[in-house]
Amino acid sequence: MKFLAYGPHGSESAAVIDGDRTFDLRPLIGEARVVDRAFLEADGIARTRAALAAGDLPELTALGAERRGAPLTPGKILCIGLNYRDHAAETNAEIPAEPIVFMKAADTVVGPDDDVLIPRGSRKTDWEVELGVVIGSTLRRTDSEEEAMRAVAGYVLSHDVSEREYQLERGGTWDKGKNCETFTPLGPWLVTADEIADVQDLGLRLSVNGKRHQDGTTANQIFPVAEVVRYLSEFMTLYPGDVINTGTPAGVALGLPGTPYLRSGDVVELEIDQLGAQRQTFRDA
Amino acid sequence: MKFLAYGPHGSESAAVIDGDRTFDLRPLIGEARVVDRAFLEADGIARTRAALAAGDLPELTALGAERRGAPLTPGKILCIGLNYRDHAAETNAEIPAEPIVFMKAADTVVGPDDDVLIPRGSRKTDWEVELGVVIGSTLRRTDSEEEAMRAVAGYVLSHDVSEREYQLERGGTWDKGKNCETFTPLGPWLVTADEIADVQDLGLRLSVNGKRHQDGTTANQIFPVAEVVRYLSEFMTLYPGDVINTGTPAGVALGLPGTPYLRSGDVVELEIDQLGAQRQTFRDA
Repeated sequence: MKFLAYGPHGSESAAVIDGDRTFDLRPLIGEARVVDRAFLEADGIARTRAALAAGDLPELTALGAERRGAPLTPGKILCIGLNYRDHAAETNAEIPAEPIVFMKAADTVVGPDDDVLIPRGSRKTDWEVELGVVIGSTLRRTDSEEEAMRAVAGYVLSHDVSEREYQLERGGTWDKGKNCETFTPLGPWLVTADEIADVQDLGLRLSVNGKRHQDGTTANQIFPVAEVVRYLSEFMTLYPGDVINTGTPAGVALGLPGTPYLRSGDVVELEIDQLGAQRQTFRDA
Repeated sequence: MKFLAYGPHGSESAAVIDGDRTFDLRPLIGEARVVDRAFLEADGIARTRAALAAGDLPELTALGAERRGAPLTPGKILCIGLNYRDHAAETNAEIPAEPIVFMKAADTVVGPDDDVLIPRGSRKTDWEVELGVVIGSTLRRTDSEEEAMRAVAGYVLSHDVSEREYQLERGGTWDKGKNCETFTPLGPWLVTADEIADVQDLGLRLSVNGKRHQDGTTANQIFPVAEVVRYLSEFMTLYPGDVINTGTPAGVALGLPGTPYLRSGDVVELEIDQLGAQRQTFRDA
């Protein structure tokens, strides 16, 4: 199944794709409107599966004209830095001995095709296509990667937009360059884990104004998904609806001397195999 | 006014203290139960003031036996590192040229007197009494400290519990040592800004098992509150309900060689002038 949200920002409705048909999730999801912690905690994925099997959800057609929203309202958003060998190399960073963790606030999330705002005065707004992992059940410290993976509800395409000057040249931790308004386009789909045969064999691609800049595969992750989720559980409790951005492959502006950073009017398109595609226009804030 | 919450974890009710009397906020706050972004965005503070003036809120008595909850459900929690000269000195850190920013997830918040869990295997769980700033209205990038301060709803006592090995010895950014479950006791009160004559003249104190370790004043902040709020607005949008922990004065275990870190059974008591007091027992997770 693929969960999604559509409609105006802030008043989205939820739907679910089963095979090639789309169904209205509103009868099941109630007031939350969009998949969130409460829906996942209340076994929403299994209940959706049962409702589909029973034919209890009305089919939807003609969503084509609707704005696509983020498919879930995340709890916390954890991010892994420098998690692809090629990206660590291009930024002249050492291969980390253990995962680097930073955070994005959930209030930075927008839909997959919404405009992204370049902060006033920003000179180094950069792109990062990322595989997002969506937590489905509470996970406290575990030593088992199998247990960690059982806590994963599914996956989502995530754009970890980054301001490099704020991130790297303004003192302190990376969070400063990761939390500008609209800096986390998410979606179009939360794809349930059962649909992804091998999460370490997904191609990721990103283009700016039609020119391909990133073309990687999750096979090149330094710390694969199962290890990342288990590792994070050492330090914090993971809750349903939390999202983990698992890092970006090579090809960001930071890593390519002479490559211009993003400017107003630029169009960024990104996709991950089986997780759909995003398209954003960048605008001055 | 002082906003507070009481009752069992996860099903608190809100109240407000006006002078020396406490009033039931439930008629005004509705389903949210506790002060949050929606309440603040809907002008909840002004509406509370009007309801008190009109005598529309029933008085409460005998809350003494009730558990005290966090007085608000925060959005994002931003934290300023090394913001007191004495604390920077004791940890052998340079005085930062600009504020160091890191983040805590809202899911780490507990009530002011709740047990705090020492992570399994942790050897360096440490204390930090902090002045928390609560945002009351949306603030986008501003160059004006006056405008920044107009966005402040009030203040809250915040305990920025920290695991120093996770924070400093495990690679990457500080977030890893700041987001363990229960690591952000908050409260007892959200004290509205009008009650605090000078936020840069508040004493902060913290004791462990009755022994005073921290005894500072916000007068020693390197970056005062107005500058911190304005500074953060350069990098991200601040929303009602966001909390900013503004750093801790000297006296943490990290800064005092030979001082034991926290162990199960330890009792930490902390207070800030006019913002009330907290008391936590630390327990093994």
